[in-house]
Amino acid sequence: MDSQISNSSKIVKFQDGVLQETHDEIVTEHPLTIHLNGEEFATMVCSPDNIKELTIGFLASEGFIRKIDEIKNIQIDESKGYAYVDLHVKTVTASHEFHSKRFIGSCCGKSRQFYFHNDARTAKTSTSNMTLTPLQCISFMRELQEGSVTFQETGGVHNAALFSADELIVSRTDIGRHNALDKILGYCIENRIPVRDKIIAFSGRISSEVLLKAAKIGVGIILSKSAPTNLAIKLADDLNITAVGFIRGNTFNIYSHPERIISEHKS
Amino acid sequence: MDSQISNSSKIVKFQDGVLQETHDEIVTEHPLTIHLNGEEFATMVCSPDNIKELTIGFLASEGFIRKIDEIKNIQIDESKGYAYVDLHVKTVTASHEFHSKRFIGSCCGKSRQFYFHNDARTAKTSTSNMTLTPLQCISFMRELQEGSVTFQETGGVHNAALFSADELIVSRTDIGRHNALDKILGYCIENRIPVRDKIIAFSGRISSEVLLKAAKIGVGIILSKSAPTNLAIKLADDLNITAVGFIRGNTFNIYSHPERIISEHKS
Repeated sequence: MDSQISNSSKIVKFQDGVLQETHDEIVTEHPLTIHLNGEEFATMVCSPDNIKELTIGFLASEGFIRKIDEIKNIQIDESKGYAYVDLHVKTVTASHEFHSKRFIGSCCGKSRQFYFHNDARTAKTSTSNMTLTPLQCISFMRELQEGSVTFQETGGVHNAALFSADELIVSRTDIGRHNALDKILGYCIENRIPVRDKIIAFSGRISSEVLLKAAKIGVGIILSKSAPTNLAIKLADDLNITAVGFIRGNTFNIYSHPERIISEHKS
Repeated sequence: MDSQISNSSKIVKFQDGVLQETHDEIVTEHPLTIHLNGEEFATMVCSPDNIKELTIGFLASEGFIRKIDEIKNIQIDESKGYAYVDLHVKTVTASHEFHSKRFIGSCCGKSRQFYFHNDARTAKTSTSNMTLTPLQCISFMRELQEGSVTFQETGGVHNAALFSADELIVSRTDIGRHNALDKILGYCIENRIPVRDKIIAFSGRISSEVLLKAAKIGVGIILSKSAPTNLAIKLADDLNITAVGFIRGNTFNIYSHPERIISEHKS
């Protein structure tokens, strides 16, 4: 598997009224097939980095594992784009049930069945007591964007980062919005990072599934430079998550649980 | 089903250093469950407009229909978000095979199996001879963006439009990038629109699956304001599709089959 997030490619550019050949950075997209307990379980396309984290995060997000100890063995074949995972518990039957229900995934849809069965089990209601100032919201989003060279070069990837109140803990990039969040989840599980008082900053729109990813990671606050959907706001209300969007320049909107964002101007 | 693409919601806005309650337009997101030949087939989340087109386009994109005549009966329950489709041909077994293979969908992944089985059957190699000038590429993209009030209001939807060399034929909006394209495909099938010499303009990144959607619609040129992936470019090369991206202001990049974009400055 190509280990580069992007690479240079020959293009024809139209600029100043003329067409001319040049080169541009193109974001790479590779398939990853996960075998679970010896069975082909899922295939996704992704950016070919941090594949182990992506695999662990995906399985956790789908409700098959909660802790790294539940994984008996995991092998990644980066060159071919395969991950082989054996769990201590055999969940092949369960995975078949998921197969037969989860038909549409990712940004454009999900199975209600899947939503009720799996998300209800894995999406946590936040118990986080942490608060942020408006300037923290703005600076975290700025740090996320400045940290993403690939995005600036190719415009083609999503970025997600986990912050504590004090600092950036981990930042991940993927062409798939949910993959970037699954890589963060995988990192937290693999490294046993406590998430209750952390923040997710995300480059893309807060859809219902992005909000559910944040709940599955376990954070109380999600920051985005883009807009949420009404369904995401409803889920954020229910799951006690503060959704902050449209963070652009020195302005932003709080769409749910604004009590966690405390202005310097108050009190 | 809420028939509005967006509606006003109460938010807390941070502006000029202060937090204050206000209202903002929030994009709506609703589930749609498609029953095919009496069986639950797929559920997606979508923007609740043009549900019939979305259903027809989705089934065509998945390879279950090619023409409107293949649909025996279609009923939409907008209030509950259900579509009931009966085909003249019973494909329930096939749909089960797809269920068991197509696990990840939409923007973040696809099953290789599905790719080879279904896409190979439905993604057409373009035979289009049409050409565009650079100024047409730029004006079509401008028209797409100016046409999308919802996008400007909420920042949360994807837009797709079908153009002939002369004019806009149809424009569709959805929170799901692939749904917007499936609505276009559904419109073309329902209205028997010839697509060979049409153009797709799309607001989002040209991923491998977006490129495949364009091929399934049957166009020879896809325009985007965003960047393609290397896998999308490879597919565009193979399927004889001209992929034009990063259309911003008066510049753009041609990533595949540039022979269809003919500069006024030539000859």
